[in-house]
Amino acid sequence: MKKFSELAELIQCVSADLTAFWLDADLSAEELSAKLNPEISEAVPFAEAKSGSITLLDSLKKLSSLAECGASAVLLPRGAEEKLAGEGMKKLNPKGIALLLSENPYLDFAKLVSCFNPPISRPSSGIHPGAFIDSTAKIGENVTVMANVHIGPNVEVGANVILHPNVCLMEGVKIGEDSVLFPNVTVYEKCVIGARCILHAGVVLGAYGFGYDSSTGKHLLSPQLGNVVLADEVELGANTTIDRGTFGSTRIGEGTKIDNLVMIGHNCQIGRHNLLCSQVGIAGSSSTGDYVVCAGQVGLADHISIASHVILGAQAGVPSSISEPGTYLGSPIMNINEMKRQFVAVKQLSEYWKTLKKLAKEAETASTK
Amino acid sequence: MKKFSELAELIQCVSADLTAFWLDADLSAEELSAKLNPEISEAVPFAEAKSGSITLLDSLKKLSSLAECGASAVLLPRGAEEKLAGEGMKKLNPKGIALLLSENPYLDFAKLVSCFNPPISRPSSGIHPGAFIDSTAKIGENVTVMANVHIGPNVEVGANVILHPNVCLMEGVKIGEDSVLFPNVTVYEKCVIGARCILHAGVVLGAYGFGYDSSTGKHLLSPQLGNVVLADEVELGANTTIDRGTFGSTRIGEGTKIDNLVMIGHNCQIGRHNLLCSQVGIAGSSSTGDYVVCAGQVGLADHISIASHVILGAQAGVPSSISEPGTYLGSPIMNINEMKRQFVAVKQLSEYWKTLKKLAKEAETASTK
Amino acid sequence: MKKFSELAELIQCVSADLTAFWLDADLSAEELSAKLNPEISEAVPFAEAKSGSITLLDSLKKLSSLAECGASAVLLPRGAEEKLAGEGMKKLNPKGIALLLSENPYLDFAKLVSCFNPPISRPSSGIHPGAFIDSTAKIGENVTVMANVHIGPNVEVGANVILHPNVCLMEGVKIGEDSVLFPNVTVYEKCVIGARCILHAGVVLGAYGFGYDSSTGKHLLSPQLGNVVLADEVELGANTTIDRGTFGSTRIGEGTKIDNLVMIGHNCQIGRHNLLCSQVGIAGSSSTGDYVVCAGQVGLADHISIASHVILGAQAGVPSSISEPGTYLGSPIMNINEMKRQFVAVKQLSEYWKTLKKLAKEAETASTK
Repeated sequence: MKKFSELAELIQCVSADLTAFWLDADLSAEELSAKLNPEISEAVPFAEAKSGSITLLDSLKKLSSLAECGASAVLLPRGAEEKLAGEGMKKLNPKGIALLLSENPYLDFAKLVSCFNPPISRPSSGIHPGAFIDSTAKIGENVTVMANVHIGPNVEVGANVILHPNVCLMEGVKIGEDSVLFPNVTVYEKCVIGARCILHAGVVLGAYGFGYDSSTGKHLLSPQLGNVVLADEVELGANTTIDRGTFGSTRIGEGTKIDNLVMIGHNCQIGRHNLLCSQVGIAGSSSTGDYVVCAGQVGLADHISIASHVILGAQAGVPSSISEPGTYLGSPIMNINEMKRQFVAVKQLSEYWKTLKKLAKEAETASTK
Repeated sequence: MKKFSELAELIQCVSADLTAFWLDADLSAEELSAKLNPEISEAVPFAEAKSGSITLLDSLKKLSSLAECGASAVLLPRGAEEKLAGEGMKKLNPKGIALLLSENPYLDFAKLVSCFNPPISRPSSGIHPGAFIDSTAKIGENVTVMANVHIGPNVEVGANVILHPNVCLMEGVKIGEDSVLFPNVTVYEKCVIGARCILHAGVVLGAYGFGYDSSTGKHLLSPQLGNVVLADEVELGANTTIDRGTFGSTRIGEGTKIDNLVMIGHNCQIGRHNLLCSQVGIAGSSSTGDYVVCAGQVGLADHISIASHVILGAQAGVPSSISEPGTYLGSPIMNINEMKRQFVAVKQLSEYWKTLKKLAKEAETASTK
Repeated sequence: MKKFSELAELIQCVSADLTAFWLDADLSAEELSAKLNPEISEAVPFAEAKSGSITLLDSLKKLSSLAECGASAVLLPRGAEEKLAGEGMKKLNPKGIALLLSENPYLDFAKLVSCFNPPISRPSSGIHPGAFIDSTAKIGENVTVMANVHIGPNVEVGANVILHPNVCLMEGVKIGEDSVLFPNVTVYEKCVIGARCILHAGVVLGAYGFGYDSSTGKHLLSPQLGNVVLADEVELGANTTIDRGTFGSTRIGEGTKIDNLVMIGHNCQIGRHNLLCSQVGIAGSSSTGDYVVCAGQVGLADHISIASHVILGAQAGVPSSISEPGTYLGSPIMNINEMKRQFVAVKQLSEYWKTLKKLAKEAETASTK
């Protein structure tokens, strides 16, 4: 339980003065004080807010929803004061909710949430007795190795790395400093992970590429001599899989973030600062430039290249290379403008058909005259 | 090996008398008895049935397939007796397969299968010496903790819960009674699982949401202060992932069943008794009402809401909210009736084109006269 | 570091003589020898090749890219010698890169890569002290059981099998000889794996099928009495899931290869030598013939059958059975020829519209005359 005034101090808010606006003349001094400085017991999202909550209203466009809000206090973005003054505090904030203004409401709200619900601290460093570490492995300073972790021969783990339970590092894996591998991550032999990477639970790095020689009627597995190389600050979502290169490396560029259940095929070369949303699939030997964005469930064919700054809409299917930056939608993809035109055209088909039948009938009538 | 008559007793069948219908006059008493009461060694699906099998024919519409069936006995739904009498037992059941009638053939067949192939009993309760349990964790009565399970600080596990090998429960996780977590499940810090839930192998609950502040050219991870809350009787398929809320909880409503390889993004609010089939993806902050059904590979955009009783066809793509119950198909989705119309219209395009060219030619001919 | 001549010997190349073609008259004997027989320090993919590299140029069509190649040596397919002679070595290979010809350049390049970057040898056989094996399990000869593996009651593991860390085999599982299970694989009770199978990390075999009786308003789980049966030489990609049969077996045929993150539903019967690419989903009780190919993200409805030799393009959606071999695209699918026609037709819509409006206008003009 915290006083509103304590929270206001905590986030160095721009202003908490707005509370004065809505004051009713007929409140006692005590009632007034309680209203101005309510007791707060939780910081929760807007839809869950009730008496005792502080919450976040992150857009000025939604200011009118203050009227239905049950919270005791609300954090607003800077600029709200003018709107409130303009349209009238009584009208916009009829219940007299205590208000707080902030230049960075999103970051400040994170501070408030942390205040009531502190994040779990990092596990203490050290090696759990239930971990198995090969004698040839090199473990850096201040590393955390939790229970049931398996570290194979010639593995190198950089300083401050955290290996959660059941992580398995096969022979010759290298991990840069400050990276975190969550439970049940598997890293196949010889794969390389940069510094400050985050691999979420269930990630599989370096499984065999899906390449076969089928000339004999059986499918014979290709050589699997390459590896996977993640540059620094790469993040991989839960249960995402990246296959190893055939002869060389499958690479993920610096700062690229990949969501859950994504598949990156063997030999792919993914650029820097890409955002690949959940369930995206990129087939073998394809590449992307920098700042490419793939929305959910996008699929890319094999052996194609996508230019920097391309944005692909959800469920897009990309059969061939894209050389121009821009937004593309559909399966197979089209440029967004062409897509819109075509979508409208298909919708109008029945109208076309009517016009056409009318014309045909007139033509027939005309010819039989 | 069981006698047909034993099986008939086992399931309290409506009637096994139908066998009398097909009796040939020229069988000896012994042959007759063997035909009426064959030895059964297995209960298997229809396509795999052979001599010595009992199998299930679950629809009266398929009664004619009895003629090609190699089973020694067949379980039929109530009502088959009239059809058999009407169309003639000799014609429909020429081989004289021993028949069994049931009000609930599906459930009764499950009993028969269990009789030959008993389900594995639940593992005995107790804590395996190869499990690691933090001293601050609270473990309820009759709990099973198998090898290599990792239970972090302040975890609470309800009575009768089963934790299969390699399950990892991070700090502060709570699990309601009678829930089962299969091998290699990871539950991140502070997540809450209701009673009688089933989490299949490889499920990841509470990994970080895919939300970034990209204003600086780098993608900076959003706060990860929330958790995941599963209500009672939720089931999650193998390798499904549900991300934690940013500030609050990602929630799955009571009785909702989710298939394998499904992705539920951060902050989503999934209603009660939903059925989400395999490989469905729901982007962050979206919500569904009750009894929503998503067929396989459906994708929902972020920040949208789906009304109760909406059904989405396989591979549907949903870019915006749906407020009316009904069935929707396509990517982007359309109401099913509009979809059918449009599908037909597109198929007819080449016909349009012919009509149009004919008209154009006639018009030209007319104008040159 | 190896001499080019050593590598040429290693792969029993067809010819390394081509180097003679480009020789300049003004090189000293020593320079000439160095050019003809350079020192090689790595074998890498074409895009990564630099001085000191040997690389592979696997198609004669790309011969012109030799001019921009920085490698010290290049492996070429047989037939290159004629093209080089025809178009002129000086023109096609201006830098005088040392060239090697091979009948099987792909396989030979694998040998070269292995020479510089030897594949990790199989882990030595034996049972790690950190593994848990039930006393009733039967473990064959020369089996490798690594740390944290869990083997339940009545499991049978064939000769030479490798079980990587954290593999969990539940009660009654059987594995044929020479199969490899990578880390964190879960095999549910009674499932059967053939000989020479490869299951990549995170695979889940035999989780419950997604079948419910919803007649009461709640979703009640179907019986889960079957299992999964993999024939010999099946390969399953990382985090792929195959659900157990309701009463019988979900089956995968001999030699079928399945990529990462694929879902095969309960009761499916997949044929022999199929290739199912990443993120394919096959709903319950469907079947495929032999040599079926599904490209990435294909979805098949439940209870359908796909004929042998059908090829399904990426993201195809298959609502009903396919009885004719051939290539099918789209969602819902069409035969590839019909698809192409329709795709063209939709693209021409705006042209139709113009023609139509012109006609309509002429008709109107005509009628008002």
